[in-house]
Amino acid sequence: MESVPLSPDALEARLRAIGRDRYHHRHPFHVLMRDGELGRGQIMAWALNRYHYQAVVPRKDAAILSRIEDPALRRAWRQRLVDQDGAEAPGGLARWLALTDGLGLDRGDVVAGRGVLPATRFAADAYLHFVRERPLVAAIASSLTELFAPSIIAERVAGMLAHYPFIRRETLAYFDTRLTEAPRDADFALAWVKHEARTAAEQELVLEALSFKCDVLWAMLDALHHAYVAPGHVPPGAFVPGAET
Amino acid sequence: MESVPLSPDALEARLRAIGRDRYHHRHPFHVLMRDGELGRGQIMAWALNRYHYQAVVPRKDAAILSRIEDPALRRAWRQRLVDQDGAEAPGGLARWLALTDGLGLDRGDVVAGRGVLPATRFAADAYLHFVRERPLVAAIASSLTELFAPSIIAERVAGMLAHYPFIRRETLAYFDTRLTEAPRDADFALAWVKHEARTAAEQELVLEALSFKCDVLWAMLDALHHAYVAPGHVPPGAFVPGAET
Repeated sequence: MESVPLSPDALEARLRAIGRDRYHHRHPFHVLMRDGELGRGQIMAWALNRYHYQAVVPRKDAAILSRIEDPALRRAWRQRLVDQDGAEAPGGLARWLALTDGLGLDRGDVVAGRGVLPATRFAADAYLHFVRERPLVAAIASSLTELFAPSIIAERVAGMLAHYPFIRRETLAYFDTRLTEAPRDADFALAWVKHEARTAAEQELVLEALSFKCDVLWAMLDALHHAYVAPGHVPPGAFVPGAET
Repeated sequence: MESVPLSPDALEARLRAIGRDRYHHRHPFHVLMRDGELGRGQIMAWALNRYHYQAVVPRKDAAILSRIEDPALRRAWRQRLVDQDGAEAPGGLARWLALTDGLGLDRGDVVAGRGVLPATRFAADAYLHFVRERPLVAAIASSLTELFAPSIIAERVAGMLAHYPFIRRETLAYFDTRLTEAPRDADFALAWVKHEARTAAEQELVLEALSFKCDVLWAMLDALHHAYVAPGHVPPGAFVPGAET
């Protein structure tokens, strides 16, 4: 990377270019799901594995909180835990279980992670270890995939409602809330990163962090695609569509 | 798991059953490689990604060393570092580079991990974090896939020499040495685990550790299979056969 720092707006442009090229809205499994090309068992496998990732997210945010020294930043970041784990109202994780319930997955299996692909665990754990081990500016920047979440959520919800008779509007309640939470969180994190990452070295960390996080999301869809689109590739011990009790 | 501990020999039988069912000698990518069904670019992708895993192994063994309190056990385990990193003679990592050299991969790219699949990184890092974070008996037991290494190595070497004109005997020197090192290491670790894991809870940790490690190896071949067997699935930033300089 050049040793001359980018302007904050040029940094934002580079971040948005990474999202355009590497975010999982371009992944073939997302395209199949959006276009109605998947069966119920494949959607179940997606929801089961994605729940495992969702369950890691609040632990990821707690790890970031544990590294922040500024009380104001901690107060702002704390909202993510409230959103995922709930307060008076149910949180994002509980709403995700409405989706897995609606698909007919056993809630005990989902929460225990039975049948989750090992590759999903490895990717989600890589995210958790990343925010524990990398500099704080990189840990914060790894959340910036949320900049690109609204478009993929809108496509996913519209496609699922149009194509899959076993999916009902209320089953997708998780995504309604994320459509407002994700931009709020992403705007905050982006402003913070643009303000804090002033040296070329810090900016390189930020760009690498967003690429890394795109790799995490992409690898999870790769694993689903490999296991559940072509027949015969479900790894030992993982969920088998049609074999669920 | 039953709360009555297994006898040491019954524990060994359970471990061997896990290997029979979940070790990657059963993976379709290994079968394709052994049977001569892959092209040079696919073998290059395998060697590039597998080098990344090999490079994590001595760090994994160092992490285990850092957790062992018994000097005698540390002395025995230390040999693994010597074997991988070399002493007077080159170690396993250097011999692996003879393979990637022989395939025409750029050594700088291989050592820097350029083009390695993110899923390979996530799986290898999961192994590293496992041995850092889990109880020592589990960390040691996760090495027991070496019990099953000689058979897969013998198949791989015979198949590669029979089917791939671009592979020469001396390029595969890595595997010759592993045919004696792996059984010696595996026998030592197995004897230690059988002696130390006496409670049902410890034995459960040991069995889970071997399953986990089989998942790591399997997930790496899944990622290679998905990216490089069917066309069109190489993830962003990863090695593209035929595009290497």
